Amino acid sequence: MSANELWGGRFAKGPAEIMERINASIDFDRRLYAQDIRGSMAHSSMLMACNIISEADGKKIQDGLQTILREIEAGNFKTDPALEDIHMHVEARLRELIGDAAGRLHTARSRNDQVATDFRLWVRDTMDHLDGELADLVDALLDQADAEADTVMPGFTHLQAAQPVTFGHHMLAYVEMFARDRGRLADARSRLNESPLGSAALAGTSFPIDREMTAKELGFDRPTANSLDGVSDRDFALEFLSFASICSMHLSRLAEEIVIWSSAQFRFVECSDSFSTGSSIMPQKKNPDAAELIRGKAGRSAGAFTSLLMMMKGLPMTYGKDMQEDKEPVFDAADNLQLCLAAMSGMIRDIKVNGEVMTAASGAGFTTATDLADWLVQKLDMPFRRAHHVTGALVKLAEENTCGLEDLSLSQMQSVEGGITEEIYKVLGVQNSVASRISYGGTAPSRVREQIARWRQKLDQEGGGK
Amino acid sequence: MSANELWGGRFAKGPAEIMERINASIDFDRRLYAQDIRGSMAHSSMLMACNIISEADGKKIQDGLQTILREIEAGNFKTDPALEDIHMHVEARLRELIGDAAGRLHTARSRNDQVATDFRLWVRDTMDHLDGELADLVDALLDQADAEADTVMPGFTHLQAAQPVTFGHHMLAYVEMFARDRGRLADARSRLNESPLGSAALAGTSFPIDREMTAKELGFDRPTANSLDGVSDRDFALEFLSFASICSMHLSRLAEEIVIWSSAQFRFVECSDSFSTGSSIMPQKKNPDAAELIRGKAGRSAGAFTSLLMMMKGLPMTYGKDMQEDKEPVFDAADNLQLCLAAMSGMIRDIKVNGEVMTAASGAGFTTATDLADWLVQKLDMPFRRAHHVTGALVKLAEENTCGLEDLSLSQMQSVEGGITEEIYKVLGVQNSVASRISYGGTAPSRVREQIARWRQKLDQEGGGK
Amino acid sequence: MSANELWGGRFAKGPAEIMERINASIDFDRRLYAQDIRGSMAHSSMLMACNIISEADGKKIQDGLQTILREIEAGNFKTDPALEDIHMHVEARLRELIGDAAGRLHTARSRNDQVATDFRLWVRDTMDHLDGELADLVDALLDQADAEADTVMPGFTHLQAAQPVTFGHHMLAYVEMFARDRGRLADARSRLNESPLGSAALAGTSFPIDREMTAKELGFDRPTANSLDGVSDRDFALEFLSFASICSMHLSRLAEEIVIWSSAQFRFVECSDSFSTGSSIMPQKKNPDAAELIRGKAGRSAGAFTSLLMMMKGLPMTYGKDMQEDKEPVFDAADNLQLCLAAMSGMIRDIKVNGEVMTAASGAGFTTATDLADWLVQKLDMPFRRAHHVTGALVKLAEENTCGLEDLSLSQMQSVEGGITEEIYKVLGVQNSVASRISYGGTAPSRVREQIARWRQKLDQEGGGK
Amino acid sequence: MSANELWGGRFAKGPAEIMERINASIDFDRRLYAQDIRGSMAHSSMLMACNIISEADGKKIQDGLQTILREIEAGNFKTDPALEDIHMHVEARLRELIGDAAGRLHTARSRNDQVATDFRLWVRDTMDHLDGELADLVDALLDQADAEADTVMPGFTHLQAAQPVTFGHHMLAYVEMFARDRGRLADARSRLNESPLGSAALAGTSFPIDREMTAKELGFDRPTANSLDGVSDRDFALEFLSFASICSMHLSRLAEEIVIWSSAQFRFVECSDSFSTGSSIMPQKKNPDAAELIRGKAGRSAGAFTSLLMMMKGLPMTYGKDMQEDKEPVFDAADNLQLCLAAMSGMIRDIKVNGEVMTAASGAGFTTATDLADWLVQKLDMPFRRAHHVTGALVKLAEENTCGLEDLSLSQMQSVEGGITEEIYKVLGVQNSVASRISYGGTAPSRVREQIARWRQKLDQEGGGK
Repeated sequence: MSANELWGGRFAKGPAEIMERINASIDFDRRLYAQDIRGSMAHSSMLMACNIISEADGKKIQDGLQTILREIEAGNFKTDPALEDIHMHVEARLRELIGDAAGRLHTARSRNDQVATDFRLWVRDTMDHLDGELADLVDALLDQADAEADTVMPGFTHLQAAQPVTFGHHMLAYVEMFARDRGRLADARSRLNESPLGSAALAGTSFPIDREMTAKELGFDRPTANSLDGVSDRDFALEFLSFASICSMHLSRLAEEIVIWSSAQFRFVECSDSFSTGSSIMPQKKNPDAAELIRGKAGRSAGAFTSLLMMMKGLPMTYGKDMQEDKEPVFDAADNLQLCLAAMSGMIRDIKVNGEVMTAASGAGFTTATDLADWLVQKLDMPFRRAHHVTGALVKLAEENTCGLEDLSLSQMQSVEGGITEEIYKVLGVQNSVASRISYGGTAPSRVREQIARWRQKLDQEGGGK
Repeated sequence: MSANELWGGRFAKGPAEIMERINASIDFDRRLYAQDIRGSMAHSSMLMACNIISEADGKKIQDGLQTILREIEAGNFKTDPALEDIHMHVEARLRELIGDAAGRLHTARSRNDQVATDFRLWVRDTMDHLDGELADLVDALLDQADAEADTVMPGFTHLQAAQPVTFGHHMLAYVEMFARDRGRLADARSRLNESPLGSAALAGTSFPIDREMTAKELGFDRPTANSLDGVSDRDFALEFLSFASICSMHLSRLAEEIVIWSSAQFRFVECSDSFSTGSSIMPQKKNPDAAELIRGKAGRSAGAFTSLLMMMKGLPMTYGKDMQEDKEPVFDAADNLQLCLAAMSGMIRDIKVNGEVMTAASGAGFTTATDLADWLVQKLDMPFRRAHHVTGALVKLAEENTCGLEDLSLSQMQSVEGGITEEIYKVLGVQNSVASRISYGGTAPSRVREQIARWRQKLDQEGGGK
Repeated sequence: MSANELWGGRFAKGPAEIMERINASIDFDRRLYAQDIRGSMAHSSMLMACNIISEADGKKIQDGLQTILREIEAGNFKTDPALEDIHMHVEARLRELIGDAAGRLHTARSRNDQVATDFRLWVRDTMDHLDGELADLVDALLDQADAEADTVMPGFTHLQAAQPVTFGHHMLAYVEMFARDRGRLADARSRLNESPLGSAALAGTSFPIDREMTAKELGFDRPTANSLDGVSDRDFALEFLSFASICSMHLSRLAEEIVIWSSAQFRFVECSDSFSTGSSIMPQKKNPDAAELIRGKAGRSAGAFTSLLMMMKGLPMTYGKDMQEDKEPVFDAADNLQLCLAAMSGMIRDIKVNGEVMTAASGAGFTTATDLADWLVQKLDMPFRRAHHVTGALVKLAEENTCGLEDLSLSQMQSVEGGITEEIYKVLGVQNSVASRISYGGTAPSRVREQIARWRQKLDQEGGGK
Repeated sequence: MSANELWGGRFAKGPAEIMERINASIDFDRRLYAQDIRGSMAHSSMLMACNIISEADGKKIQDGLQTILREIEAGNFKTDPALEDIHMHVEARLRELIGDAAGRLHTARSRNDQVATDFRLWVRDTMDHLDGELADLVDALLDQADAEADTVMPGFTHLQAAQPVTFGHHMLAYVEMFARDRGRLADARSRLNESPLGSAALAGTSFPIDREMTAKELGFDRPTANSLDGVSDRDFALEFLSFASICSMHLSRLAEEIVIWSSAQFRFVECSDSFSTGSSIMPQKKNPDAAELIRGKAGRSAGAFTSLLMMMKGLPMTYGKDMQEDKEPVFDAADNLQLCLAAMSGMIRDIKVNGEVMTAASGAGFTTATDLADWLVQKLDMPFRRAHHVTGALVKLAEENTCGLEDLSLSQMQSVEGGITEEIYKVLGVQNSVASRISYGGTAPSRVREQIARWRQKLDQEGGGK
């Protein structure tokens, strides 16, 4: 079959058909059905309360909307590209159900403020869901941090062991990142949470509507303060995509670490079978597919942000049809982030930590040399430059003896620097090194547990976690 | 309904289900079915020819594949997320249809080279289709250029009239852009057109396969020369998205012009009803929806490019599951570009050009002042600086008389500069100005027609156009 | 001259030289000098207070740092690529000035937490500056809104006049946008405002440092809570770029409007000579260069965000040299946004509004037809569908008489619909239409002034504005 | 010092100063000086040849231009923001040097076609230079491939060893990538290589110029065919950035591998000291800084592409000042790519390959299991499913004996499958496995050498390489 046939033939489409295809949004905006009906319920309640429509008409409208909601959720709702979008579908069905009263619903409202309201509600619902997923991921990380608060591993810079740290400390670094993501989400939600309903087409309306009432009914903090901005603002979608991009980047870093740690060369962790694929004839091969998918999907939210930002670039006010392009990137980024967060939580909960391998790796390469130098400075008041010189000499001695710094005898040490005392052994050895890093935020297990407790308390306060 | 319910509940999903959802690609890669079967047909033919499988098994395989193709095209093919992707679906169905012989199809082939082959074939088919759409758009532009080769309009810089040009010349500028897009497409196609089939998992194979044969059968120029690269290269997808991004940018420029030209303030053109939406009670309002959608979709291919590039960034060789993220951005960009090109062709064919309005606008603002200055330089051998001074004085005179430069009498002109002769009127007036720009590629109607003829001939040679 | 010579010859560079060139950051990070010295002042004060270094050494260090600061600000500071970055330059100069005591400054500090601290300080300073620029732009917009609160202009959708609004209302839409930008900036600043100083290389330190003290000294709210995250987090830079991208998009919309409004076809506004360029011989031509530059620069911050996000994608913890790429995109985006905001403020303050042209345009196309339909619904309790039908008939009548709706006589109106009364004229005419849009956030001048007062009060409270 | 002072005070700048700062491009476009003078030399030659200016004036102009070129290259050329750009600087200096004749240079030329020409020339020069860098990198990769054509290493999927390959084969995969980059560069260069000179402001000119002559003189293939497109086209810059983005992505993959391979856990390679940084007291620590910088810079060209594409999005024809934003992203991407290519070539030439470590790793995990299964299919005509079953049993047996497959005795093998013969050992063992992959493009050393020879010959033919 040729490409031409695949696409339905090159010049076969008449203008009308192409226009219908490029114009219709029902294939994707049907996802807004619940928000659309919620918005119409609030709007009709307000119209009744303000005596703009009669109670009788309002009651009919609301019963009809509830019927439509049930139909859609039961899967008994046919869509038709000729009816363009979800709003026209609901409107047309309402007219079928209740007749002319359906028209009253659109009093003092326009498609422009309706769409803006629906989309905000959807993004807000999604934010709330994703915040729950993030809380769950933080919870999973805290569990691992708690279980491995004492497990020593190499702290890497440049993928080279630099200083020993604990696995718990490492997990907490990601807790910080995802907590910042939650902060960004909360800020974005707060900024989003104004109701454009009542902006009408763009200029506001002469009907005596009560925008505070619909705002409150829909859980918004207040109505938007400028009707032109109300219908043409898509900042909330961009800010959501910015959050998603940064959060996905964090996920990609953790995913990369899992991929590297899962290699036969590292063997720091092992992913559970649930999140890996294998080879029927190569039993050791265990591909960290979920981690790779999470890493790969980081590009997606970034692409969505680029896409939406470029669409908005240089658009004169107020609504342009360009803005119909706002939803698909948001849906795509939201769906993928939801999958990634849930998969990462599952992976982290399931992951098997090879503490012995990590601890062994953390001592290779004289990673406690800086501890030794710091001891010389602190205890012998040695200037830095000299401390480094002495440390270099001791490392060389250990190398010649193919042993670790902590394996040198006191006399061997004193042959290099006479002031060294028995106390030096308290900072050598990776366990000692780690225990000594007691500055706030440091890797000492005591500090790690302090942070776990702080975060656990926060989660408990918000009633989140498990 | 809460967001939580919408998504199916926050912690309800077990790891296995999340993994299945993040892992399965059948929802999007089912679009590769025709390419997958085409690839398997070629592979099985080669296996027979090379005596790697028997004629009997090969025949069974090929009959089975044809049956599956018919089933899919008839819409009688059920998909199942548990079977992950289109390749497993076809494989499983083949086994149902022909039994154990189905397994022979996978001799000397791996999922990795199979996917790479299928995707290349799909992108190539799409390129061929889009090239046809581009040829059609060029054809539409040439038709308009031909019809309006003499229609004078303002040539803008900074959206300010600078010099008169013709509408035909303006259309030809876009012909140049879309022709370059076709050039990029052709180059990308040529670079794509190597067959990865036979790269196997990543190392090649020990079976005595004939990669030239499958390459030829599938319309490829040659097999890829390195098996590691064969399974991990996605340059062809990136290059396609780069083409799509640049082409979409061109479309966005033309779309922007149509939007501006359609405003009540410009009234240079009028879109047909097929590509506009209106207001039932504001008859003059005619919204250029199709142009706006085309403009808005420019962000989409750029986002897709960003997405894929970021996914590939820093991936070690060879195949990583990250690469499963390669298809959706390509599908999305291809679908949207196809729609945009078809819609733009339709719009251009239908567009009504208001020549009188454009011509009137082209003379406002003394846009032929440079013609006058050039005449002074050319005919009176006046240095530039002085020619500009004289021109300024004449413009001032015309302004005082609230007339155009061409409306000044010869004696009025000579009062400013005695050397001016009757001949000056040949370069004043927008028609004269336009006619005088006879340098190669200039806006003179003779040059415009020359270019139309050149492009028309090219289209004819390739059997394209209508 | 060949390209080869331009670049210095193709294979002439030895590895060492290439490494120095790719590795050195002094060319751009010298901009951090003030922050670097501020951080070192705070660190040395703390080291003294905690008795980690002596008062004598601390005093020497601080005097030396002040000397260096004066040298740099006086322009008497030579840089050398061999000294890689600003931190090494300051360190080396300090050693020259005060000798061995200089080494004490680096006690309990590493390059990693030092760089992270400096960069945060720089971004925070920049945020504060940009917030001032934004306040100034809001102030300029409020001034224009105030001056033109009653000036009627067309409210556009699809660049087609839809309903009359006021220019003041239009300006306020941008006030909303830039106020949201300020909100994003404030949130980002608050999240940034934690001190990484004391994270040391990555694990924290065993020195008895006081991280609260340095945090407070440097104006941070608290120290960061995880040392690994402290040295590897660049969220603050990304969040700044996200803010800058969205803010630049807002600027691009206003810039686009200025470009369109400045065209000879629109003539809604005229930019001052300060922000335009012209043609010596085409006096009417006035190119809105500043607006175009602002519009064009919108791509730049988006590119910077993409760049930084892609750099961070998939980076394992903690510091990788990749992160040296974090500064240039931030510097570039900050510089350009600063220019754009200042230029836009200047343009808005200077802009000449052609109220008559705008008002005339706002009535063309029966833009008050919806007002008429709304009146029929509100006053005659007519169902929507019928109200639209009646409106359509009246528009047709006006068209036949080539007059506006408000120019029809009452009897002409009553010939279409008997119930229409004299009162109808209160909603026809663009001034009446505008005055009637009294819903909260609507375009009625009373509402516009209400919003101006609200924003003006906010600016006054923060001591901002002029 | 406050941010405010840093920036020069918040409201201190008058409009004029801000406009000068946002408008001036001399800080970056001074890099076009050589191209600007080259273009003017060609233009003046043509003007003389066509008798549009006198020989005397032409001679003065050309001598003046040569003087300016020498002044600039000697560093004796002062720039001044008031003179905006390089073109005005050259023009002003020429007038100082030769007086009024300088004005003749601008006959039949505008700033618009001049800038477009200069920028094309610069991009073309840069392309030529980068092509040389790419050829050098290919050369370096071929040298390594040659040296290690027989060195067995693990072929990875998902960073898990899948099948043995050779290091030479791995190097060749990158040769393929960079060769495709060269192909893209060549295609882009060919498409760029048309001369916009003579497009004048936008409409062409009435002077009897010879565009073929200037095109030829400047090394262009032909003049551009549409003057509007000639001054507003920036495709060549976008296509260059697309090339740079894809090429940088390739570099990032190789860089990532070098970083991973350099870890203590992998130890596959060791970077030379020239491209690493170390720790004075941790002798084993060797940070692959250059590789990380190369990896990090991949975001930069992608950001530049995004930036330029967004700038061009929706721009109406022809020239807008937005387009002044075209140069910086191109300069930045070019500079960085040049550095990355040169650094990568140096790294690859210097890199120390630990063949023994790689070979040992390539056998772990029964990576030759597929060889065994293939042998069963090929030699015993066993159906795939059964072959996999038998292989699984043999792997299990080897696991129980903690040995490799090749260490099982024939009788042990035959206890599982009687048909197995001595010949099986020819495919077991990683050396044998590798040697058996003789399909075209496969990893067998014979195939690797074949490809090295092919590429070497290509380089030789173009006179490139070393």
